[in-house]
Amino acid sequence: MLEKSVLKHLTKLKLKKNRKEELEFVVEGLKGVNDALTSAMEVILVVIDGKLRDEKDFVDIIKKAENKGVAVTYCGRQDIDKIKDTETFSGILAVIAQRNSTLDNFDDGPIICLEDINDPGNLGTIIRTADWFGFKNILLSSDTVDVYNPKTVRSTMGSVFHLNFFKTANLFQTLEKIKKEYEYKLYALDLNGEDYKKIKSENKVVYIFGSESHGISPDIEKIVDKSYTIPGQGKAESLNVAVSAAIIMSHLS
Amino acid sequence: MLEKSVLKHLTKLKLKKNRKEELEFVVEGLKGVNDALTSAMEVILVVIDGKLRDEKDFVDIIKKAENKGVAVTYCGRQDIDKIKDTETFSGILAVIAQRNSTLDNFDDGPIICLEDINDPGNLGTIIRTADWFGFKNILLSSDTVDVYNPKTVRSTMGSVFHLNFFKTANLFQTLEKIKKEYEYKLYALDLNGEDYKKIKSENKVVYIFGSESHGISPDIEKIVDKSYTIPGQGKAESLNVAVSAAIIMSHLS
Repeated sequence: MLEKSVLKHLTKLKLKKNRKEELEFVVEGLKGVNDALTSAMEVILVVIDGKLRDEKDFVDIIKKAENKGVAVTYCGRQDIDKIKDTETFSGILAVIAQRNSTLDNFDDGPIICLEDINDPGNLGTIIRTADWFGFKNILLSSDTVDVYNPKTVRSTMGSVFHLNFFKTANLFQTLEKIKKEYEYKLYALDLNGEDYKKIKSENKVVYIFGSESHGISPDIEKIVDKSYTIPGQGKAESLNVAVSAAIIMSHLS
Repeated sequence: MLEKSVLKHLTKLKLKKNRKEELEFVVEGLKGVNDALTSAMEVILVVIDGKLRDEKDFVDIIKKAENKGVAVTYCGRQDIDKIKDTETFSGILAVIAQRNSTLDNFDDGPIICLEDINDPGNLGTIIRTADWFGFKNILLSSDTVDVYNPKTVRSTMGSVFHLNFFKTANLFQTLEKIKKEYEYKLYALDLNGEDYKKIKSENKVVYIFGSESHGISPDIEKIVDKSYTIPGQGKAESLNVAVSAAIIMSHLS
């Protein structure tokens, strides 16, 4: 059985405001925990269903955690219903320290900027795609869904451990700063721009994607250097934002 | 209040096997119902929350339905909990006749083929993206999630009304037939092919995408004419299948 304090802590991390305060988050599943232990992230604690501790995959992961000096604790059936996020909880989770960046510790190179994306699956898919194509820096507006939301974490398929995230309280000001002080260009993806196939891959560019329902806000449209569009020819009204971002990132790489 | 028979019918349509038997499905929401009424689909019944019948958007849609000779019926609060699929049911749904195709009534041109895609959101996003880029024909393996699943319908954002769907009981045989009798080429997207940027857009091609977890099955890999890959350069292990399909479709158009 879990210690009361651990159980309380894990329950706390289900809420975004607590994750923000504790600067921690949770990943579930063998693959997720394994990815975390393999990455540069600081893993604070691994929690395993006590019944599974002798199974091969779990033995391997326990060894891996111990080699990295990560604490491993075991839980009982009655704990699981309290701590799990998915119906299909596979018997393992890890608590991980968030690694939040600022502009100053972004890697060199382009920035993917997301304004008010509110679907965790979309955000997770964008992070996964960015990782696939080698983009390192993700800039998020304050109203974008939490990167460390369990659904987002899950849909990144491990890529949440590889990229730099900076959630700004004021996206407009941050973009102005990136433009002036860091000499980046701002390119927006919207419905009235030039064909995206004209974009040339450059290092110092912020690619901005707007929310699922409202697109990029008018204030930000005013300061962008250029707008691009993915031209359609069928009857659909729009593309999913994770799909649009993927098409742009694939074009650029 | 809804008639008992209508309530029973709507409840029945929540299950895939009943949708298959009745050859009907349900779409929720003002936009969805409006898209259906505007499309070439046969709308069988519109159900509206009686409290909303005098609101502007609903008055418009009632008029539209009546002009098309579609029956409109009203429901009470106690019905809604039984019929709705979403927590945020917005007071309107429609029952629509499925329009299932065969190879013979596919449009000319390329075919998007999905083998065992099991996430309704992925399937819906692929349908929406196909519609955006003007692809008309979707071929589905028998183990692919139901096109008429409410989650799939929702994530198509209306595009489910615009394309041709053919769910085959034996994908292998169908692909062999398309190859021999219809003289199509079969191109697979997998992890060991040539760079997808080499694909040239052709009319008589089936583009095959495999399941989220297993990719394309070995049997089908054996009969494809060519394999293509979306090269990555980061640390992600794979791309989401809806993202992969989008990148290919965007490249082709």
